[in-house]
Amino acid sequence: MQALFQEKLQVLNVGLSSFADSITRAGGSVLQIEWAPPALGQQEVGRALARLVNLLSVETANQTAFDAYQSAQPVLSSVGIAGKVLPNMGERMILHGGPPIAWKDMCGPMKGAIVGAILYEGWAENLARAEAMASSGEIAFEPCHHHHAVGPMAGIISPSMPVWMVTNTTNGNHAFSNFNEGLGKALRFGANGPEVITRLKWMGQILAPALRAGVELLGGVDLKPMMAQALHMGDEVHNRNAAASSLFLKRLISALLKTPTPAADLAAVVEFIAGNDHFFLNLSMAACKAMLDAAHGVPGSSMVTAMARNGVEFGIRVSGTGSRWFTTEAPVVDGLFFPGYTTADAAPDLGDSAITETAGVGGFAMAASPAIVKFVGGTPQDAIDNTMAMTHITVGRNNAFTLPS
Amino acid sequence: MQALFQEKLQVLNVGLSSFADSITRAGGSVLQIEWAPPALGQQEVGRALARLVNLLSVETANQTAFDAYQSAQPVLSSVGIAGKVLPNMGERMILHGGPPIAWKDMCGPMKGAIVGAILYEGWAENLARAEAMASSGEIAFEPCHHHHAVGPMAGIISPSMPVWMVTNTTNGNHAFSNFNEGLGKALRFGANGPEVITRLKWMGQILAPALRAGVELLGGVDLKPMMAQALHMGDEVHNRNAAASSLFLKRLISALLKTPTPAADLAAVVEFIAGNDHFFLNLSMAACKAMLDAAHGVPGSSMVTAMARNGVEFGIRVSGTGSRWFTTEAPVVDGLFFPGYTTADAAPDLGDSAITETAGVGGFAMAASPAIVKFVGGTPQDAIDNTMAMTHITVGRNNAFTLPS
Repeated sequence: MQALFQEKLQVLNVGLSSFADSITRAGGSVLQIEWAPPALGQQEVGRALARLVNLLSVETANQTAFDAYQSAQPVLSSVGIAGKVLPNMGERMILHGGPPIAWKDMCGPMKGAIVGAILYEGWAENLARAEAMASSGEIAFEPCHHHHAVGPMAGIISPSMPVWMVTNTTNGNHAFSNFNEGLGKALRFGANGPEVITRLKWMGQILAPALRAGVELLGGVDLKPMMAQALHMGDEVHNRNAAASSLFLKRLISALLKTPTPAADLAAVVEFIAGNDHFFLNLSMAACKAMLDAAHGVPGSSMVTAMARNGVEFGIRVSGTGSRWFTTEAPVVDGLFFPGYTTADAAPDLGDSAITETAGVGGFAMAASPAIVKFVGGTPQDAIDNTMAMTHITVGRNNAFTLPS
Repeated sequence: MQALFQEKLQVLNVGLSSFADSITRAGGSVLQIEWAPPALGQQEVGRALARLVNLLSVETANQTAFDAYQSAQPVLSSVGIAGKVLPNMGERMILHGGPPIAWKDMCGPMKGAIVGAILYEGWAENLARAEAMASSGEIAFEPCHHHHAVGPMAGIISPSMPVWMVTNTTNGNHAFSNFNEGLGKALRFGANGPEVITRLKWMGQILAPALRAGVELLGGVDLKPMMAQALHMGDEVHNRNAAASSLFLKRLISALLKTPTPAADLAAVVEFIAGNDHFFLNLSMAACKAMLDAAHGVPGSSMVTAMARNGVEFGIRVSGTGSRWFTTEAPVVDGLFFPGYTTADAAPDLGDSAITETAGVGGFAMAASPAIVKFVGGTPQDAIDNTMAMTHITVGRNNAFTLPS
């Protein structure tokens, strides 16, 4: 005991920080452990939460949900037009990323993208009229997720846009995603200038028919093995899709060449795909959505089946709680910025692409992608630690997606 | 000392095994350490070898050779016809893998491949006449390496075959390799049936002109960055070229589509490349050859600039000893065999593909390719250990080729 007092005093303070503050003021050193009573101290809610831990009925329901996710076989079956193939898609409806949000509450990039979509649809002639129309209430805004769809960033899907059609052949549920426009000025980042609209038109008129013809000639493309292979080639299939995009192009190209697509269009299509290492992202997302929708709707299951951000709120959906969203403030991301810009200029976190993490890939599989880790400033060991840490909050491990070594 | 004799006796025997044999016969346990005096006991040669260790003039020469290897920039510049572009290629000459060897001494697969090449060239009408011609002495057989070329397995290159043309743009030396035929029955394994010859004809008449047009439209393809990227995507660019082949196809395809190649040919060309995950191997080999030829011919350098096998002998060339080969018996490879076959049915090690290991990739970079390690029955840790062990016999490390994590 005497020896203890001869050592330098080290204090860990749990809970109320005022105790720690006193020690700091007195010149001492203290580590504050963040802790608060469960359910913000509401005893009844706290007890109810505690009763859910290891509850047999929940564990059983989770296993049912997990098995449905695990056995899902997402297959890219075709390419369709959103207004024709998305369930319950309205004529004057625009879908967006994340949980529900009203026009007036949306972040800048989402508003910009919606204005762009209105111009793309030809519903208004210029930016001012498009913005007036968006705020007038005559257009319905709904989450992609309410239509079995997902879209990265702003996640905008309007009726005449082409969409990937993915089918889970195990139980027949469908999932959808828009096409990836590439980097630079793009609708999903809120850009809506003429070059953005022109590219969207080209994607609808040239790219989509070519891809539909190619995919249908192949009789569909199994996405799960392609994602599994890409995970062994340095991708985590969210922020890095370089290998998957190559594999997809390689799979598609022979079929594309057998379709009646004119040679000049074909060259443009292939150049577009080959020039965009993120091309596969939207396919990865649709595949994840198809797998997770299979797990959705199991009574009593607490498995998270969607995580998504709308630039203002971060929301999750849970298998056993139907269409309800549980939301909180969307975090501001401390990411990489163009020179001169900081987090103060940025919208909070945005988009449906966290469907990949919900499905156990993306950030959850960062150990597969050392290149991404170095990009964001970590070490490969950080990535492995992160992936292993995630196993504490997951229902199980995917037997189709493995990590190298 | 007394305690020692109470323990179980453990013997390590160095050198002559007869001492160990006596212990074994007496029922003891002994570990025999393989050791022999340097230079098989020839004192003068042994002393001469010892004087070479850390000799300044050799170290300096090796650094010069290594720098030339390191600074080489192999670029795929075009596709040519062997008889027209290979230096000193004779009209009735056939090149083969490994060090020099006479027809009568060749292994079965090499003889089979040469007979196939004679049929392909139209020098004989059937197998029997082709074999008679091969043994008659009217055809010159020379190693690919004597013509700045490399070929996997039998490594057969005859005058009308198409070859990759790789230029080291740093100092202008050229290297060449034939095209990869894919797996199954192929000339490089000694197969020479009609389907093999038909495919070779198609490769010369359709594939080669299409590739030449595409490569030239691109103004050449830098191979080193492509290999470096593939090393981060699970390839070691010898036995696994899945990523590199995808990257190469992705790079080439837009250009191919802009060439006047007829649509049906283009579809066949792309299908052929996309269907062969080893397609890039011969490019990897030619790139390695270009880098190593840059290091060849430095007086006094002991850097190994080629390792190659002809199915009978394993040979090396050393930078400072010119065109001379140093050979030994080719090892029998304890590899994977088709059911019912064993090492007893196999030819000893064959081909120029060890040029990849000479250049520090392939088996030397096995840590980059966990998939290959599992294929041959090891663990990723074995691969890392192997790669690290190789640093004891290499002159330096390549600053362009790194390993993931």
